[in-house]
Amino acid sequence: MSGEPYNPPRGMRDIIGEEAELYEYLFSEFRSIARARGFEPIITPTLEYFKLFEAKSGEEIRNAMYVFEDKSGRLLALRPEITASVIRAYIRHMRARPKPIRLYYIAQCFRYEEPQYARYREFWQGGLEIIGDPDVNADLSAAITASEFLERVGVKHYYIAGNVLVYRSLMRKMHIEEEFQDHILHLIDKDQVDRALEELKAKVGDEKAEIFKRFVEVGDINKLEQLIEGHKDFLGELYETVQREQERMLTFIDTLKQLGYDVRYSSKLVRGLAYYTGLIFEYKVPSEKLTQSVGGGGRYDGLTTVYGAPFEYSTGLALGIDRIALVLKESFKPRHPVKAVILVLDNAPLHIGYKIAKMLPRDFLEVFVYRARSISRALEYANKLGCRYVLIYGEKEHSMGVITLKDMSTGEQKQVPIGDVLKEIRLALHAR
Amino acid sequence: MSGEPYNPPRGMRDIIGEEAELYEYLFSEFRSIARARGFEPIITPTLEYFKLFEAKSGEEIRNAMYVFEDKSGRLLALRPEITASVIRAYIRHMRARPKPIRLYYIAQCFRYEEPQYARYREFWQGGLEIIGDPDVNADLSAAITASEFLERVGVKHYYIAGNVLVYRSLMRKMHIEEEFQDHILHLIDKDQVDRALEELKAKVGDEKAEIFKRFVEVGDINKLEQLIEGHKDFLGELYETVQREQERMLTFIDTLKQLGYDVRYSSKLVRGLAYYTGLIFEYKVPSEKLTQSVGGGGRYDGLTTVYGAPFEYSTGLALGIDRIALVLKESFKPRHPVKAVILVLDNAPLHIGYKIAKMLPRDFLEVFVYRARSISRALEYANKLGCRYVLIYGEKEHSMGVITLKDMSTGEQKQVPIGDVLKEIRLALHAR
Repeated sequence: MSGEPYNPPRGMRDIIGEEAELYEYLFSEFRSIARARGFEPIITPTLEYFKLFEAKSGEEIRNAMYVFEDKSGRLLALRPEITASVIRAYIRHMRARPKPIRLYYIAQCFRYEEPQYARYREFWQGGLEIIGDPDVNADLSAAITASEFLERVGVKHYYIAGNVLVYRSLMRKMHIEEEFQDHILHLIDKDQVDRALEELKAKVGDEKAEIFKRFVEVGDINKLEQLIEGHKDFLGELYETVQREQERMLTFIDTLKQLGYDVRYSSKLVRGLAYYTGLIFEYKVPSEKLTQSVGGGGRYDGLTTVYGAPFEYSTGLALGIDRIALVLKESFKPRHPVKAVILVLDNAPLHIGYKIAKMLPRDFLEVFVYRARSISRALEYANKLGCRYVLIYGEKEHSMGVITLKDMSTGEQKQVPIGDVLKEIRLALHAR
Repeated sequence: MSGEPYNPPRGMRDIIGEEAELYEYLFSEFRSIARARGFEPIITPTLEYFKLFEAKSGEEIRNAMYVFEDKSGRLLALRPEITASVIRAYIRHMRARPKPIRLYYIAQCFRYEEPQYARYREFWQGGLEIIGDPDVNADLSAAITASEFLERVGVKHYYIAGNVLVYRSLMRKMHIEEEFQDHILHLIDKDQVDRALEELKAKVGDEKAEIFKRFVEVGDINKLEQLIEGHKDFLGELYETVQREQERMLTFIDTLKQLGYDVRYSSKLVRGLAYYTGLIFEYKVPSEKLTQSVGGGGRYDGLTTVYGAPFEYSTGLALGIDRIALVLKESFKPRHPVKAVILVLDNAPLHIGYKIAKMLPRDFLEVFVYRARSISRALEYANKLGCRYVLIYGEKEHSMGVITLKDMSTGEQKQVPIGDVLKEIRLALHAR
């Protein structure tokens, strides 16, 4: 058994057993916490027109998309991320709603990248978006909700925070067009700071590249403040915007710290997506194995205008469910209610088995009807599944209106009236 | 605002607002009932190698797949259904497990068909599969679990049951190769019985086509029994198999009827997928608008062999979540806990707002922190969102260690110590 059609496509996986239960647990907790924080669900198409992602996905992601023509010659792409779709859906359906609008999603994304540890070609994201709120509290609200989720599922994490507005402002003052700005930021994201500075130097000369360099290399957020102050004249009419953004950054970091979160400022954080306009952040876990972030986000004010709609404020984040699952894989134990099997023998009417199953409360007992030729084989099966009880219903039981209740942990069995099954199981569980 | 990139691709949709809540409710109930009946989750890739679906998806579905080459020239397809993937995953990962194996999934599928009412190019399926059980109880177990789900969410439904084994047996006795069998069944599925009989006649002559016709046109399952009896000689060594299958059919239908389900036999039901080998069934709703089924399934014994693995018994079904959502759309009312907003004013520390939010139990209160320049604008927003309470925290409250609790339904407000917020809200809710 081998060969192409019988494997998942390269970089993709079957998620089964306890791992699948872990994913469902993460989906469910993410939903529950997002809802509790006033986020509403949104489901967008898995496929979009390629053009939706073309403009602002960033160099790397744009090159890693699954793109193809449909039968009508339209260029489609499997979504590499969800924010562009959410903004498209906002523009189409939600512009008249009271703002800010709070949305969440859980969805697969696709990137045709070289598979490696914790990087798959199909991966799951849980995301939060807030549209229509300029206040830094919106960024905090999304960020803290994600932290609450990570805390709930038991993922220790810290923040890396950065800001792209200062870079974009500097480059605007250097008369660098947006596309080249994106390229420079992409290089910094890829840890190629030297190359970024070189390309910048070639474009705008030594002096200006040197200014940019100072900002890239500042390690401390307080020193960044001084640096902004020191370049007030260079920044000119943009100085106030940069100054205000710096204050937002300080509020963001300070509020998180007040709430007990570890936040580290990094001038080299820029993130892969080209639509970010200001504050950005990532979630890291203290792990030697998992060096990539488990999520991140930031401000993307005005992404609406890329799609021809009026300017709107927006911020958001996405968590990588696969990476979170990797962190939790070792420690996760799925919780099951008491398991049982109703074993209907060949000589008894099958439908009674289903009637008994319906009598038992679903949240208390996980139970299904099974029919097998051999009792011993059926008991062995129930045992392997981890069933605590087997309820045997054969000709004898049928004629007497009883069921044989077998406790798999003790091997004991007794006949009980069908109407008393639940009571008997509860009693037996209490007695232990 | 119009044009290609700003719409979802043709036949696909944004699911937002109450509709999105309905989908999440259906996902959650499906999971909960599948788990309670001993089914385990499985998540397979959205993309598969085209070859996986090529063999046994059936004529119509094969022609309606989104197929494309990846950058390495491999032919990939967006899954048109999930069973083939589940069987692939079973062969790769689960052959050593105790059988029967019970699996469930919730996943999107893709078919490039002409969009129409209740038919989308991307659609959601909730499915159940049981691998390794030859007994008709396995078919019943899946079917009844699906019915329990439909009952739980409030979808009145009835069953249409049929069987393809008798057709395949007849055609085998007519020495018709499997591919042409698939084609004939496909025509019957498409309601082109006359054309199917004509093509059959051209292939095997009048007499044999006439035999086939009798079986296609039988309306009553008891008459089918007589018909099988009457063609004992024609069926030859296959007679016993057909006879046994007829008994399975009767047990299936009888057990469902005993449990109070409405089941109608139809000789013309064959279903679109070519992998079915015996008993098949569909779920219908009594609706003039929604004439399509809301789900269906059946036996697909031996699909494992198509992928080169040893023969294994298998049965399963899938429900169309989009169609179920259409049925429930009018009546569905999402349930929310009490909604509140914590309004932190500009002059008070933001982090206290988040501390208050964390003090409130998430399952009792849906609450988030909001910061706005104007109180009246914030109250208007909270009102539009349907918030019952606004908790105002400004400079004054901060200095006094209190919060102003405003009941949006009465307009009343009072200051309460921060530690008493929960108690006060509970009291206020009880008092009404």
